[in-house]
Amino acid sequence: MATLQGFLPPSSPEGRAAVVRPPPWHYSGELLTVEYRTDPERVAALLPDGIELAPEDPGAVALIWADWQSCSDSFEELLDPVRAQYKECFAVVRCVFRGQLYSRCVYIWVDSDFALARGWHQGYPKKLGAIHVTRPVTVGRAGPRLQPGGRFGATLSAGGRRLAEARFTITGPSSSTGFVNALPMLHTRAWPSIEQGAPASMHELVTMKGRDVELGPAWTGTVELDLLASPTEELAALAPREMIAGYHRSVGVTFEGGTCITRIK
Amino acid sequence: MATLQGFLPPSSPEGRAAVVRPPPWHYSGELLTVEYRTDPERVAALLPDGIELAPEDPGAVALIWADWQSCSDSFEELLDPVRAQYKECFAVVRCVFRGQLYSRCVYIWVDSDFALARGWHQGYPKKLGAIHVTRPVTVGRAGPRLQPGGRFGATLSAGGRRLAEARFTITGPSSSTGFVNALPMLHTRAWPSIEQGAPASMHELVTMKGRDVELGPAWTGTVELDLLASPTEELAALAPREMIAGYHRSVGVTFEGGTCITRIK
Amino acid sequence: MATLQGFLPPSSPEGRAAVVRPPPWHYSGELLTVEYRTDPERVAALLPDGIELAPEDPGAVALIWADWQSCSDSFEELLDPVRAQYKECFAVVRCVFRGQLYSRCVYIWVDSDFALARGWHQGYPKKLGAIHVTRPVTVGRAGPRLQPGGRFGATLSAGGRRLAEARFTITGPSSSTGFVNALPMLHTRAWPSIEQGAPASMHELVTMKGRDVELGPAWTGTVELDLLASPTEELAALAPREMIAGYHRSVGVTFEGGTCITRIK
Amino acid sequence: MATLQGFLPPSSPEGRAAVVRPPPWHYSGELLTVEYRTDPERVAALLPDGIELAPEDPGAVALIWADWQSCSDSFEELLDPVRAQYKECFAVVRCVFRGQLYSRCVYIWVDSDFALARGWHQGYPKKLGAIHVTRPVTVGRAGPRLQPGGRFGATLSAGGRRLAEARFTITGPSSSTGFVNALPMLHTRAWPSIEQGAPASMHELVTMKGRDVELGPAWTGTVELDLLASPTEELAALAPREMIAGYHRSVGVTFEGGTCITRIK
Repeated sequence: MATLQGFLPPSSPEGRAAVVRPPPWHYSGELLTVEYRTDPERVAALLPDGIELAPEDPGAVALIWADWQSCSDSFEELLDPVRAQYKECFAVVRCVFRGQLYSRCVYIWVDSDFALARGWHQGYPKKLGAIHVTRPVTVGRAGPRLQPGGRFGATLSAGGRRLAEARFTITGPSSSTGFVNALPMLHTRAWPSIEQGAPASMHELVTMKGRDVELGPAWTGTVELDLLASPTEELAALAPREMIAGYHRSVGVTFEGGTCITRIK
Repeated sequence: MATLQGFLPPSSPEGRAAVVRPPPWHYSGELLTVEYRTDPERVAALLPDGIELAPEDPGAVALIWADWQSCSDSFEELLDPVRAQYKECFAVVRCVFRGQLYSRCVYIWVDSDFALARGWHQGYPKKLGAIHVTRPVTVGRAGPRLQPGGRFGATLSAGGRRLAEARFTITGPSSSTGFVNALPMLHTRAWPSIEQGAPASMHELVTMKGRDVELGPAWTGTVELDLLASPTEELAALAPREMIAGYHRSVGVTFEGGTCITRIK
Repeated sequence: MATLQGFLPPSSPEGRAAVVRPPPWHYSGELLTVEYRTDPERVAALLPDGIELAPEDPGAVALIWADWQSCSDSFEELLDPVRAQYKECFAVVRCVFRGQLYSRCVYIWVDSDFALARGWHQGYPKKLGAIHVTRPVTVGRAGPRLQPGGRFGATLSAGGRRLAEARFTITGPSSSTGFVNALPMLHTRAWPSIEQGAPASMHELVTMKGRDVELGPAWTGTVELDLLASPTEELAALAPREMIAGYHRSVGVTFEGGTCITRIK
Repeated sequence: MATLQGFLPPSSPEGRAAVVRPPPWHYSGELLTVEYRTDPERVAALLPDGIELAPEDPGAVALIWADWQSCSDSFEELLDPVRAQYKECFAVVRCVFRGQLYSRCVYIWVDSDFALARGWHQGYPKKLGAIHVTRPVTVGRAGPRLQPGGRFGATLSAGGRRLAEARFTITGPSSSTGFVNALPMLHTRAWPSIEQGAPASMHELVTMKGRDVELGPAWTGTVELDLLASPTEELAALAPREMIAGYHRSVGVTFEGGTCITRIK
């Protein structure tokens, strides 16, 4: 009798075919965070029943571009970097559930299948996109330095349509990278039944946060953001009313699992 | 209070952001099917506990290349074809569960996120890949005709590695496109818990088959197949011992849902 | 002493590494042609010195989506279809040089390197893009039939920005696929010197047309077209003032070479 | 009369449509260099008539992975990074022409059209490929540090086939990044006539080197390299007989032009 292996599909005799290896998953990357305020009604419209707006600054949004390497505990992905490197862009809001304040990812695009599958496991509602963000450099003229005056661009496209464009200029060092994506995540993990009209096969609220966080120096600065309409997206409904600030930082983190808060089914 | 919409993530106020619209899903495409026999032990090694080898011809495998258009009942995807077109390559075996004979997809690669997500919903263990298959033509010299002597190539790559290469030559018309992918599907829909070591959040055996099947003329012929090793795949373990035949056919089908047979959790 | 081979770079001992094999090149594909009129000044602005507007209907433009298979005289590309299949979208105008009326391609995007290099050889000013066009089908509900009422969408993106979107509805059969892309091509083949400020290393006007043209039935219909702005494109300057018609046809053709009319250098 | 602009095609009224802006081109990137010795006959087989093997160490080859940002003198590409970022992998040998020792790029793959076109201008025989190289990190566990023990992987694929895989482990600092890619380049810029059998329209030997070179600290280490066969490539003919060393360094450089040595036509 076969013993099939595979943390996520496909299952296979040796477990090498699975779209990702089992956690823990280690991440090292550079994050460009754009914080701003939108109409709080637009944030409320993205929260499921029973989850409420944050009482303070309820319209705050973080749109984050991340350029990652990640790997399993075998670290073998790092020597075949097509399995380790990916970029993502994601929109985070804050919310309250049972009296506790959380961060919540409402939209996210990535450019690899292993990151997409891993995200669905964690409750990140990932789709594929094309993500670009300027990298800081230390030599030459083709890139900003991590110092005041350094200018960065960040873009997101999906389906051949530009969805977001940001420009960030460093003004100085920072003690944080903002407050919107700084809380434990509250995510929905839901999967409909294969049967039309039947209750969902899975419907959970989960929370998670990373461990072994290692942070590089943070930089803050001014930021501009354009969100562009698309027939297959609703990101543009989160249009900025007021910019807060931009941030840049290198981040290392490990994810090992989370906690199921409620199982709705 | 918001009413979030989205058959699959992300949920959004208008339901336009979801990676796919709700079923029914309509498909029109061309399928190149390569049937062959591998060592039955290799098929057995891919079947979960409680699912058994087919009693007759247990080593039969179909590796199928499909070039699809698909859409929801709105049909709007057909006017923005980046949302409708995709290709896939998938390996199907037969198996027995509770005395009934089924087809089962053990590996599958697609080239779009909407098809990947839809597949996970149906229990197809999809990953991303690069899929190419020669198209028949009616004019000019750069393609085969759907007639005896017509030659087709089909290839599959993932992570920048070639995984499969097939060559098919039509010998004549056919009354079928083989027997391996001809039964109701028996698929596993499984999702681990976010909590390390906890029971799976979802673990179902489901069955499904299409409705409103419309078939073009079928062609059969001789076929060669090479499966190539990769550190992230186990497809090559299904190496051919003996080729059966190849088939080409245009297929139209609608998927509306399936039936949950067992809920293991 | 080595005898290096390669019609286009790179040169190599066996000639297998070249981005394309030598001509003749055979093509079989499906073309969706959108004909319309723009401001003739916009066409004039795209013609080099000495080349003039067509005297009749000088603002006529054809924007054409093509879904090709192509191959060399070895036909081996057809069995490894990643080397044979590509899509392109190109804008054609008419012009007069030395009293003769020509077609001229002013912008063109393709999705493979072999087609890009081949185009540069022919004077097509190719860049990479993402091109999609609905395919007609014969079974199922996920595509139009080649008959009155059949609806097609066609899109072009580059750099993650949508550049063009067309919708075409067949009204009936046609005896042609329009008049704008129907003449011998007049193309510029130019290459600057490696030395700053020096005269061009190559600057030719050439003409070419295919041979062994084989045509499927043509269909015509109504068409809508949107051209979208981009900081890296000027296609939108050719905005439609008046639509003429759309056309769909399967085309087979062979290219073997052209004629150099003038060598400016 | 129109004044068309465009350093490379397409020409357009405003010059925004050209696949690249005019030089100077500024580059900042990270280079992983793999130096080794192959059979000198294999190098000789890649040199055109009149160009000879280097007298010392004639079989030396450098296979280099580069992860670049580049821009024109407008620097605008850096704020829309899809126009600035690309990766390439290229094979360099040494050769002698008219008594002078040069470096010469014999094969090169890139992942963007602007870099491909720019390369053809410079005589780099570029094709498209998928290039990946591990990035050094400063935080977290998902990447090597630029220090002894840091391990990197680098891969090259084209047409869905893996062509090269390298693994590099830093042993210590270095005063250089090798000797093979350290000389002025000697490149061929050739373009066949549009007329079958006619002399080439362009056939030049050119030399070039960068200016304003700015170098980060160099690291050296041990390296392994596998070159894999493909029907469309001859890179594997340069199989390693003996590894020399690997190197990692950040490089900034500006390219403004070169010198035409001979015009064969």
